[in-house]
Amino acid sequence: MRIFVDLPVDGAAKTLLLEGTEGHELVFPTRPAASVLHAAEPDSALATADIAFGQPDRGLIESSSTLRWIQISSSGFTRYDHPEFRRFVASHGIQVSNSAAVFANGCATHVLSFLLAQARQLPVALASQAPNGSPEWTVLRQASRTLEGETALILGYGAIGRRLVELLTPLGIKLLAYRRKARGDEGIPVVEDIGEALAGADHVINILPDNPESVGFFNAARLARIKEGAIFYNIGRGTTVDQSALAAALHAGKLGAAWLDVTDPEPLPADHELRSAPRCYITPHTAGGSGDEMSLLVRHFLSNLRAFEAGQPLAGRIM
Amino acid sequence: MRIFVDLPVDGAAKTLLLEGTEGHELVFPTRPAASVLHAAEPDSALATADIAFGQPDRGLIESSSTLRWIQISSSGFTRYDHPEFRRFVASHGIQVSNSAAVFANGCATHVLSFLLAQARQLPVALASQAPNGSPEWTVLRQASRTLEGETALILGYGAIGRRLVELLTPLGIKLLAYRRKARGDEGIPVVEDIGEALAGADHVINILPDNPESVGFFNAARLARIKEGAIFYNIGRGTTVDQSALAAALHAGKLGAAWLDVTDPEPLPADHELRSAPRCYITPHTAGGSGDEMSLLVRHFLSNLRAFEAGQPLAGRIM
Repeated sequence: MRIFVDLPVDGAAKTLLLEGTEGHELVFPTRPAASVLHAAEPDSALATADIAFGQPDRGLIESSSTLRWIQISSSGFTRYDHPEFRRFVASHGIQVSNSAAVFANGCATHVLSFLLAQARQLPVALASQAPNGSPEWTVLRQASRTLEGETALILGYGAIGRRLVELLTPLGIKLLAYRRKARGDEGIPVVEDIGEALAGADHVINILPDNPESVGFFNAARLARIKEGAIFYNIGRGTTVDQSALAAALHAGKLGAAWLDVTDPEPLPADHELRSAPRCYITPHTAGGSGDEMSLLVRHFLSNLRAFEAGQPLAGRIM
Repeated sequence: MRIFVDLPVDGAAKTLLLEGTEGHELVFPTRPAASVLHAAEPDSALATADIAFGQPDRGLIESSSTLRWIQISSSGFTRYDHPEFRRFVASHGIQVSNSAAVFANGCATHVLSFLLAQARQLPVALASQAPNGSPEWTVLRQASRTLEGETALILGYGAIGRRLVELLTPLGIKLLAYRRKARGDEGIPVVEDIGEALAGADHVINILPDNPESVGFFNAARLARIKEGAIFYNIGRGTTVDQSALAAALHAGKLGAAWLDVTDPEPLPADHELRSAPRCYITPHTAGGSGDEMSLLVRHFLSNLRAFEAGQPLAGRIM
């Protein structure tokens, strides 16, 4: 089979890919994508491929008559999540799978780092030179937390949420999930009344993907329902939040803090209101990252390639 | 019994203390200590007490003929850890217990926040506005870690170390302990060759207390044995580290980073060489802190008071 790969893959990951696809023909575009999140430039090599791995151009996919499987190199798939595209792949028998499993651990670990940096007051503590016993020190030390007995609400409960539950369990934090359809296998209670859940949680963890139902989910009304002093986290997608309302809630002292790995747009302009909002901490969409992510992505692809060859179900199939 | 309390206890914790000591006489000094870590000013009320709770003055303890039990309000007890003092309390039948159990969770959580802030590159990521896919972003994302498969060496393995093991277990990190006397109940492997262990660990976590054997433990020779690029953490006591050698190892790029909650002295002067050393992150001895620490301390004391009244062993007895 012809496998079109538009990822910027090299080193150990490329060796892994070459060895794992022996017997197949690998086709690379003239210019690979800048990252696992980026769309590649349209490349005509895609038109004759059986399999595409990366972030292939939607227009070219829709003009292909050979494609049978697309392995997307990210967890989010907003670029492909449109009714016409879903109809196209369904009518042409093209399977589409994502790489959520690859990024779940990095994303969950990133959220955990946010929760703990907040609990231990790191942004303040790392900047403080207060002597033990001074008023500044006493305030800082008493503001520090262990998370024990607090409540965290996880919105958008998939692979990342599950991993996060594993990581948070020993901390003694009470966990609740909110998702579109409860399946009964969540392992933690699933809430039905989102307003009540927002009013009761000390930590609101937004892992919602970007789709028509989630865009603007955290509007001013929902942000206003969050318990006073609670902490808001976002590692889903920036479009799920009304950023002006979020900035206002921080300025008003209503929210304890916001920790964001995703924004809309990315990066936010240097003069964006969230950049100057108090207690707003932003990382530049590095949550899913890890030093070995390209190798993990290739391994995930190769595992799915074996399944595809054998006619078995693909891991992370989304269409 | 007369109970001398020199802690700055008030609010809910004071109510708890008053209720839990009914039937006994509570005696407070003219000026309480500034914090759970501070020595109180000598106060003659101690001289006639049966029990002391806090950080009572050593000279006054040694002039008392009534004291039978001292509950120290901290985990560390350098102030009392001298052969003459040990001889005095032994010959006078005075029991001494510490509050390590109270601070173990806060300390372990603080170390966990350090490990994760480092793994997710938070000091760099929170300051970055790099666009996805840019060279700066790619370096940052690839430097991010999940800790899975890495090795952490824990030095000084007591209540904090045990709690840390619980918190780190789901992260898939390999854990090793180093302690003066292995007891066989550590639950993780105990290393014998410290040099070899330092050379193999990605994370060196120093929880050593301050005592004659530990002062200067991390001298230049031991710091030099640490694997290149490894991360050094200290939440034990600042005196266990040669701080000039540590600054030099950071400047030389030998150590990946240092995360310190304790230093010698505290706070370090603003112009101390560690304050300007690269990748050196310092919090002002807030590791054990939590919003409810005073109530936790009082509960721990009251639990020991019940044991003392019943002639049972005290939790955290150190002398």
